[in-house]
Amino acid sequence: MITRRELLACFTCMILASSVVGEGQPMEQRISIITLGVKNLAASRRVYVDGLGWKPVYENKEIIFFQTGGMVFALFLRDKLAEDFQANPATFGRAPVALAYNVRTKNEVDPLMRLSEAAGATILKSARQATWGGYSGYFADPDGFAWEVAWNPDWHMTPDGSIQIPTGRQQTKEIN
Amino acid sequence: MITRRELLACFTCMILASSVVGEGQPMEQRISIITLGVKNLAASRRVYVDGLGWKPVYENKEIIFFQTGGMVFALFLRDKLAEDFQANPATFGRAPVALAYNVRTKNEVDPLMRLSEAAGATILKSARQATWGGYSGYFADPDGFAWEVAWNPDWHMTPDGSIQIPTGRQQTKEIN
Repeated sequence: MITRRELLACFTCMILASSVVGEGQPMEQRISIITLGVKNLAASRRVYVDGLGWKPVYENKEIIFFQTGGMVFALFLRDKLAEDFQANPATFGRAPVALAYNVRTKNEVDPLMRLSEAAGATILKSARQATWGGYSGYFADPDGFAWEVAWNPDWHMTPDGSIQIPTGRQQTKEIN
Repeated sequence: MITRRELLACFTCMILASSVVGEGQPMEQRISIITLGVKNLAASRRVYVDGLGWKPVYENKEIIFFQTGGMVFALFLRDKLAEDFQANPATFGRAPVALAYNVRTKNEVDPLMRLSEAAGATILKSARQATWGGYSGYFADPDGFAWEVAWNPDWHMTPDGSIQIPTGRQQTKEIN
């Protein structure tokens, strides 16, 4: 039997452990927000909200915020984003970046690819067996941002959808 | 006093609740991996690993994986990434995307901006008061990817560094 005192001690210990980890490193190993600069917020909204079913936690005419687990995903007008980090939007090209959405079972990949296409996304690469042992495909959102829909049998997924890369030999995306 | 049975029931309930949330939506609201396409893996490694102190969970000559909370951050040779989603790397330009690292207190921003510069990053915008009520600056990694270092007094951060956007009126980045 675990007493309330033991339970409290356990939680306190967990919180302290997190704080210590946090303070021991100049920059903790985490990302708080991913912001994509988009040309047309309404077009992006149709894909992410109307098509894929994501629910904004906040939106105005310039930005849409989504809570994605312990982090935030944002769609922001690209000229406003450019202004924010002092870039010239005229030089923005195709982004060398990809976001991935991992699924629990292989048979979730194809339906999700079809859903994304129906939502107005463009299929970049139809789903197929991957050299790293899984099954995946890519679609692009209205601004060309690449999203991989992937099933990776080697990566552990917790019930809340978090993934944990196993440490050791059983790595994926190891080419050859 | 909480009995072990009650504790188990509580955990089981939490796990079931997560599963149900997961199955009720065609695409859950989460991101599994962010992959940046980089020109020179060694140059990127110097910034993220040697400079900022992040620890890879796996690396080879083409890719470096970092566990970042419940998701994964990857640096991947841009030609390989381009091949992966069938893009032409010749058309890659400056990316209209920004990653943010939020801190717990305002006085963490300046030291982290200095650390990033010492690590080989380029300051895009020195830290300053933001119109949305916080304090932030931007640096760019060797490929020009923008990272914001931000203190946002309105967003709640849990001990493990996860952030939660409050629902309701007290929103940030609301321009005007």
